Amino acid sequence: MKPSQRSDIRPFMVMDLMDRANAYQSGGRSIIHMEVGQPGTPAPEAARRAAMRAIEDNPVGYTEALGLPALRQRIADYYQEIYGLDVPASRVVITAGSSAAFVLSFLAVFDAGARIALAAPYYPAYPNILRALSCEPVILPTGPETNYQLPIDSVVAVLDQGVSGLLLASPANPTGSMIEQSTLREIAELCRERNVWLISDEIYHGITYGKAGHTAAAFSDDAIVINSFSKYFSMTGWRIGWMVAPENLLRAIERLNQNLYISTHAVSQLAALAAFDCRVELDANVAVYARNRKLLLKELPKAGITKIAPADGAFYLYADVSHLTDDAEAFCLRMLDETGVATTPGVDFDTKKGAQRVRFSYARAHTDITEGARRLKEWLAKG
Amino acid sequence: MKPSQRSDIRPFMVMDLMDRANAYQSGGRSIIHMEVGQPGTPAPEAARRAAMRAIEDNPVGYTEALGLPALRQRIADYYQEIYGLDVPASRVVITAGSSAAFVLSFLAVFDAGARIALAAPYYPAYPNILRALSCEPVILPTGPETNYQLPIDSVVAVLDQGVSGLLLASPANPTGSMIEQSTLREIAELCRERNVWLISDEIYHGITYGKAGHTAAAFSDDAIVINSFSKYFSMTGWRIGWMVAPENLLRAIERLNQNLYISTHAVSQLAALAAFDCRVELDANVAVYARNRKLLLKELPKAGITKIAPADGAFYLYADVSHLTDDAEAFCLRMLDETGVATTPGVDFDTKKGAQRVRFSYARAHTDITEGARRLKEWLAKG
Repeated sequence: MKPSQRSDIRPFMVMDLMDRANAYQSGGRSIIHMEVGQPGTPAPEAARRAAMRAIEDNPVGYTEALGLPALRQRIADYYQEIYGLDVPASRVVITAGSSAAFVLSFLAVFDAGARIALAAPYYPAYPNILRALSCEPVILPTGPETNYQLPIDSVVAVLDQGVSGLLLASPANPTGSMIEQSTLREIAELCRERNVWLISDEIYHGITYGKAGHTAAAFSDDAIVINSFSKYFSMTGWRIGWMVAPENLLRAIERLNQNLYISTHAVSQLAALAAFDCRVELDANVAVYARNRKLLLKELPKAGITKIAPADGAFYLYADVSHLTDDAEAFCLRMLDETGVATTPGVDFDTKKGAQRVRFSYARAHTDITEGARRLKEWLAKG
Repeated sequence: MKPSQRSDIRPFMVMDLMDRANAYQSGGRSIIHMEVGQPGTPAPEAARRAAMRAIEDNPVGYTEALGLPALRQRIADYYQEIYGLDVPASRVVITAGSSAAFVLSFLAVFDAGARIALAAPYYPAYPNILRALSCEPVILPTGPETNYQLPIDSVVAVLDQGVSGLLLASPANPTGSMIEQSTLREIAELCRERNVWLISDEIYHGITYGKAGHTAAAFSDDAIVINSFSKYFSMTGWRIGWMVAPENLLRAIERLNQNLYISTHAVSQLAALAAFDCRVELDANVAVYARNRKLLLKELPKAGITKIAPADGAFYLYADVSHLTDDAEAFCLRMLDETGVATTPGVDFDTKKGAQRVRFSYARAHTDITEGARRLKEWLAKG
């Protein structure tokens, strides 16, 4: 009796590294965490207060499968505030993190065997969830020459080959690259013309350095937009996110959510509602990321790491370390052993070029990142 | 552009009824909720305190994909306390409710097209999740003549036909029926001999009236056992459950959980850990269910409802109302309109005989159930 074939997805290589980092830390060693993709901050104050009140006063039962109406409305209002866009609350679906939004959207539109295009490097769960759901990711390499986003000609080429869906991410994990507004609009129109589902991962919106993120919802009512309270709202462990879904998918998504999730965590929904009142606190978190980013973009080149993806958003630097290694996993483990700095080997994001890439997460306190940069410079100076 | 074929699963018929019940209630009418399958009580006191402490003190980030080690160990200890069974903590996996445990276990062992046997009437999410994951439920009717459980001969027959899995539930929703220990043992052995995955839904363990539930983990290390903090532990909205998985599935389940869920709600895990210290409070909830059950088993027959499934566990009575209707949905809606008592039509649990069945949930306060029974008697007396 063996596991299913579709469960044979790639493990996260960073997990072994995290285990080792945690073991060092338990042993009393100072570890700088630049591996994990989550803010070092807790949920904002008012969200935590709202959660505690809910636990005190509320039976904390199941909610509506599509989410609490007040939270759906608040998110709809947010689209008006941030993007100047009218999105009806009826199209907003509350999900157990963006994780659940991916599962629900993939199941709602892709049958077994469907082919879905996406760019490499990618968030590893994209191809892994697709494979687990018996779909086939079609992975399109990108690089610095196209700013790590899919250029229109390669989108046209893959649509010509016949795919059921196209998955975009902007700002992207691990590169921080962002798609141009005109390109997003053009891709949205192309997908609609060709009857291809466009899924837009916008979970790093709100964490950008200069230009703002554009939502696919502005260019197509058929686009499936995925977002989360984990990143800008700093609520990873609360497992709450949302999607903006096309009208004709709402019933399917509701049925799937009822059956696969029942409903999203009740306390998290009430906390998320309060998180919208915490924009000052949340923007202060982003200001810390901006300082960290600036520091690393100054210090890493001094250590000889000069080929860095654009990092226009999110809280990652994705660096080409081909002059240092052809085995990013061994390189990251050695870095951890010798400096106490934990990072993520590129193989998690790109099975081809990833062996020569490292992702540095800078979502922690500025003092941590300063110390991490100091150790890295010293280590790389030794050769 | 249309939804996928596999998203075309059955909606819950009870949802329309709940919407109407909630609308009546908002309008000020007294509604007796005997439709929802969740306790009327909140999480136990110490669990809520632990959750509030966690929100105050803890960053509430992602946890290990398989769950917090302390909670996995506590659940392992619980198997010793309740069943006298050694289960290593390494085989315990924390999941986002039993919902996630079903998704993870189905994906871990069934490829697209796999056929899985289960008894009708059933928890509607079983066939719905299977279909959404491109599997095929093989539904075996049961009735009072076999105590609403699968008899050995029908298990043998379906294994002979070739299925990849067999799904058991005891106590079962909606019937409350329980499997005999000897039958469970025999089925576990048959499944192992035939290389068929046995999945045992044990989420109503702890809510039984006389005989205790038996865990499939006692009879096969290859059985996948699913349980939850939603029912006995009274924590539905917290979305937390667990499974005991065979050793050779742990890596597959870990990879799937990392990718599809990342990890289970951090606060819920800490609350669940504290819930094990609340057995007195939780057993008092069960004592209320026992009183409610006794009352309904006395009062419903006075109203002419005499054909009731065994109700040895869980908090449901599943009644044959074929002398009253051939359209359970219309019957339940009329009952709600005329009495304010909300119940669940049997069609949600059984597309064949369900049109002549109603499920009464008695998980609410005793005063509510008393009033519900009074209204029902009065209503049915009118004819």
